[in-house]
Order: sequence, then C-alpha cells, then structure tokens
Amino acid sequence: MSTFLALDAGGTQTRAALVDPDGLILGFGRAGSGNPTSGGEVAAARAVADAGRRALTVRSAVLPPARPSLAVVAMAGEQTPSYLGQLQPRLAELGVQRVQLAGDLLGIFHSGTTDLDGYTLICGTGANAARVRGGEIERVVDGSGWLLGDVGSGYWIGHRVARAATAALDGSGPQTALTELLLADVGIALPGDGWPSRREALRRLVVLLYSWRPVQLSRFSPLAFAAVVEDDAVAVGVLTEAAAALAGLLHTLRADDIPGPVIGGGGVLRNGFLAAPSALQDRIGLAPELRGLTSVTDGLVGAIVLGLRELGVEVDDTLFAGLGPAVNRAAGLS
Amino acid sequence: MSTFLALDAGGTQTRAALVDPDGLILGFGRAGSGNPTSGGEVAAARAVADAGRRALTVRSAVLPPARPSLAVVAMAGEQTPSYLGQLQPRLAELGVQRVQLAGDLLGIFHSGTTDLDGYTLICGTGANAARVRGGEIERVVDGSGWLLGDVGSGYWIGHRVARAATAALDGSGPQTALTELLLADVGIALPGDGWPSRREALRRLVVLLYSWRPVQLSRFSPLAFAAVVEDDAVAVGVLTEAAAALAGLLHTLRADDIPGPVIGGGGVLRNGFLAAPSALQDRIGLAPELRGLTSVTDGLVGAIVLGLRELGVEVDDTLFAGLGPAVNRAAGLS
Repeated sequence: MSTFLALDAGGTQTRAALVDPDGLILGFGRAGSGNPTSGGEVAAARAVADAGRRALTVRSAVLPPARPSLAVVAMAGEQTPSYLGQLQPRLAELGVQRVQLAGDLLGIFHSGTTDLDGYTLICGTGANAARVRGGEIERVVDGSGWLLGDVGSGYWIGHRVARAATAALDGSGPQTALTELLLADVGIALPGDGWPSRREALRRLVVLLYSWRPVQLSRFSPLAFAAVVEDDAVAVGVLTEAAAALAGLLHTLRADDIPGPVIGGGGVLRNGFLAAPSALQDRIGLAPELRGLTSVTDGLVGAIVLGLRELGVEVDDTLFAGLGPAVNRAAGLS
Repeated sequence: MSTFLALDAGGTQTRAALVDPDGLILGFGRAGSGNPTSGGEVAAARAVADAGRRALTVRSAVLPPARPSLAVVAMAGEQTPSYLGQLQPRLAELGVQRVQLAGDLLGIFHSGTTDLDGYTLICGTGANAARVRGGEIERVVDGSGWLLGDVGSGYWIGHRVARAATAALDGSGPQTALTELLLADVGIALPGDGWPSRREALRRLVVLLYSWRPVQLSRFSPLAFAAVVEDDAVAVGVLTEAAAALAGLLHTLRADDIPGPVIGGGGVLRNGFLAAPSALQDRIGLAPELRGLTSVTDGLVGAIVLGLRELGVEVDDTLFAGLGPAVNRAAGLS
C-alpha cells in the first residue's frame, strides 16, 4: 500500500503527516523552522526530515515501518535547486523517492478548498497573495519583505505602532494609547507626565528597538488591535490602512472568470483581523472579501490534498472535510 | 594673541578653521567623518584632531605656530563622556585645553543668524529640528533614525521611492516614473513590458536592496524630485507628505514668543526642497516657513560664532556677515 509524507514547513515550525491513499493520517511529527530563506537551507532541510522521521516513528512503534515514496512539502521561503539538493538525500533515507515542493500560498489554498481556482491571502509577519488557476499559482503579488513590501502585514502594523509611540513620546505625533501599551510590552517605565520622563523613556526605547532585527517589530501588531478596542484614533488609522492594503492585494489579483473562493492564512489575519469583533471590523473598514474568507492554520491539509491527487485519488468534498479534523486529532495525540 | 579652533564634524566630512578674536580665518583643514555614533568614537575623534592639525599646519608654513587653547566642535551624533574622553587628549596635543561640544542643530543655527532665539531644521539622510532660546537648544524633535522617525528625511523619501518602484513592478501599486529612474540608477535592465520581464527586474531589485544597509536607500531621494518635474503623481504624493512632515516638526516646536528665524541645513533640504523651482514647491505644498528659511552648508560658521562669544567677543551683524565668505575663501584655498 502506497503511503506518502505531507509536510508544512513554516517559519516557526514544521509539521508532517504520514498519509494513506484513503486520506487516513497514520503518523504525525513536528520540528522547528523549515523556511530555508530565513533560517538557512541546511537547518530547514534538517527540520523537514526530522518532522518526517517523527511521523514515521510514531507509526512504527505499533505497526510495521512505512516507506513513503512521495513527499509533498508546502513551504515558506524560496524554492531553489540548491535547497532541493539539501532536502532530497535527507528524505531519501526515509524511503522517499520523489519530493514535490509547493509554495505556502498554494499549500494554504488547498488547505481551505477543493476548488482548483481562487485566491490565497497570507498575513503573518509578512504579507502576500496569489491567484490560483487549475490548481496552480498563476500570479503572486507582494511578499517583497519588511523593507520593500508586505503591506498590511504584522511587521507593517508593528512598525507603525513603534513609530507612532516614538512620535508621541517626542511630541511630534499625536498622543495614543499605543505608547503605554508598547512601553509596558518592552518593560520601560514612564514614571511621570513631564518632558524629562518622556525623553528618557524615548531614549531607552530607541536604543532597545535599534538592537532588534527590524522584523521583530511585528510583535507589536497585537497592540494595534488592543488599542482599537480602546477606540484609539492612531490605531484605527493604522489598521484601516492595513485592511485597505490587504484588500488592495486581492483587488490587484482579481480575474473576472474567478469569483473566489479566498483562502486566508497567517497569524495576523486569523488572530487579528478575523478574530476582531464585527464592530471593530466595521470601524477599520475591513472589506467583505476579507471578512468572508475561509482561514486555515497552515498548509498541511493542502500538502495532503496535493499528495492524494498526485496518487490519482479524487479529493471530493467528503474526503476533504475529514482531513482537517484528522490532522487536528493526530496533532493533539502526538 | 588667543586663537581657537572651530570645527564642524559631520557624517561625511569634518572641517576645521583656526580663528583669531577678530574672526579672521588663519588656517583651514579637512578630514573624514566625525560622527561618533555612525562612524565610531575613535575614528571620529581622530578625524576631528586631523582636521584641526591641518588647520594649524597651513598656517605654520608661513607664520609662527599657533597654539589654540579652545576648540569648539559642532558635531553630528551623540555627545557622550566617553567620546569627549577620546577627543580631549588628541586635541591637547595641538595645545587645546578646553573642548566645547555643540550639537549639529546648534552649529547650524548659529551659522545662519546672530539671533539667540529661533529654530533649526535639518533634513539630510535623517531629519530633526530644534527650538533655540538664549543661544541654547531648548527642545529637539525627531532625529529618531531611519526605523523609528526621521520623517521627511532623505531616507524617508528614498525608502518610499524604493517601495513605490517595487509595488509598481509587482502590479500592486500604481505605475510611476520612479520605477525606470530607480532601475536605471542601480543598473537593472527592464528589457520588455511583459510580466516576465518585470518579475525578473523585481527579483533582482529585491535581492540588491536587501544587501544594502537600509539608510543607503536615502540615495533615491533625488529621484523623487526628478519625477515631480515629470509630473509623476506618486512622486508628488511622497514629497507632499515629506514637506508636510517637515513643516509638522516646526509646528511642534513653535513657541509664541519666538517668531523665528528658521535656519536650515542638510543636503535634501538645500539641494532638494529649496533648490526646486517655485512651481514644484507649490505642487508639493511646501510651507512658507520652509520656503523662507535661511539655509547653510554646515555648522562651521556657528562653531566660530560660539568660539568668539566664548572669548567675550560680541558677534555683530557686520562681523557675522564676513564669516561665511571668509570660510569659503579659506576652504577654496586649502
């Protein structure tokens, strides 16, 4: 019986499932970051192989060892020949003869729908979007990174939060609830209201934040959602602009013959924009196509779907509907 | 007869003048960057001492050696005790017993006026502004650097130029003349109009710009001024926002009892905003207080003024009016 490995290799963790042609999850494993662009090709390839090995190990404790011949890897970061060269021999040790790479945009799309046409939007630390046609990526927008693009992303929001707090402490920008939220978040006291106290807090904040890698400013994005609840005008402005930028990515991709669906991923989308109360979504003008999207945690279900199709299995709605819960059960058990 | 050294220590170069109590320039010298924050304290202190030594050497070729007892240093970067500790022994070798440091904002202010109250605005790679009262800095705004502040600066403009070109190549932003200007500036060809050609140019551009230090994006700020001449809407938007941000810094500082003057410095202010034709200034809504300001090349004249006052010399308008031309003559001869 032919089994395969489905993997989602993300910037935070890698998850792997050993799958049979009926879509049953026979094993599950986890490892660290599998993004070769941000974490290095060797470390990413090792994480992918480790997660795969664990998915096999869980099974082999109770059943005969599995030798999956195919691995489908939905991955963040760049798919390069040299990365594939790192990955193939490591997965070959598990029996894998064929490695199929798919971008995270495609993994997330196929995790949310059995349709072959539609759109994906990812908003985590970074942001990008794609149009999918016939099951393949037809066009990508953004994903140009913290310095040059990623409009509306966690970095984009967090950077604006940090700039707004800096300007408020300085007096050159409006006062905002973000200042106290941010100072509390990084543990800088603001002992008084006067200029000397604010100047000292500002000085410490500037020194601290320049010691970080810029993308770490992404950690401040939840503060914007918190401040909007407090009706803070600066936070409303930041999130309104972010929501418009994300809707703009979908607008750029829109093709008349592909009405949808839109599948979303990324922590800022799921835990920020989509988790916000409807009144808050109104307040920041979140577009209907964003409110109505299906969101998924990662691309693992999509990697399973791609693997099943590769084996010639038709993924109908009933089979598809069972995959997400099965992955969650397996993840909960492991 | 008591002479002193006046120095302007900037991020690009350091200039020094040997000055007598009548304001005559007896010697002139140059050296490299004297900014301890961006270039390191040892290198900056060495540059300041080198420039000072050269100002003495020029003179001692024809006249008895001078032993200035005072040095006034108008400097970019942070004035710290440890930097002063680097600087003092090096200048002591030239006879200097007392070193007086002044920030670049103060040096520029006193280079442009004999008034003791007013405002300074600097817009170069970075941007900041100050209110001066009684000849001293009373309050500073911004100068929080490329990541957290510096609104309207060369980096701020250049960063937006780079993002606009990236988004235009990507299709997620409006088309703009900035794209071709920027690609030409960095030597990336755009061989055709189609998406494959644009995508390849985009890929190369992203790789290139992430290999730079972020502040280097400042080099694109002149492209915005060039594109405004071509009536480019994106460039007009960027410069309109920059002009408003700079006017906002002055607005933040404004005190009712100090009507002016405003003294300006920095290459983007002088060679960009103020050098622009009046129709272009109208187009980007450059505020009257920015159009009407007096701009100076650096803080060397201000350092001379501070030195003369330190020696008890009254700097009247006639003496002051001669200082700039005298510095320029000395700089031209050296």
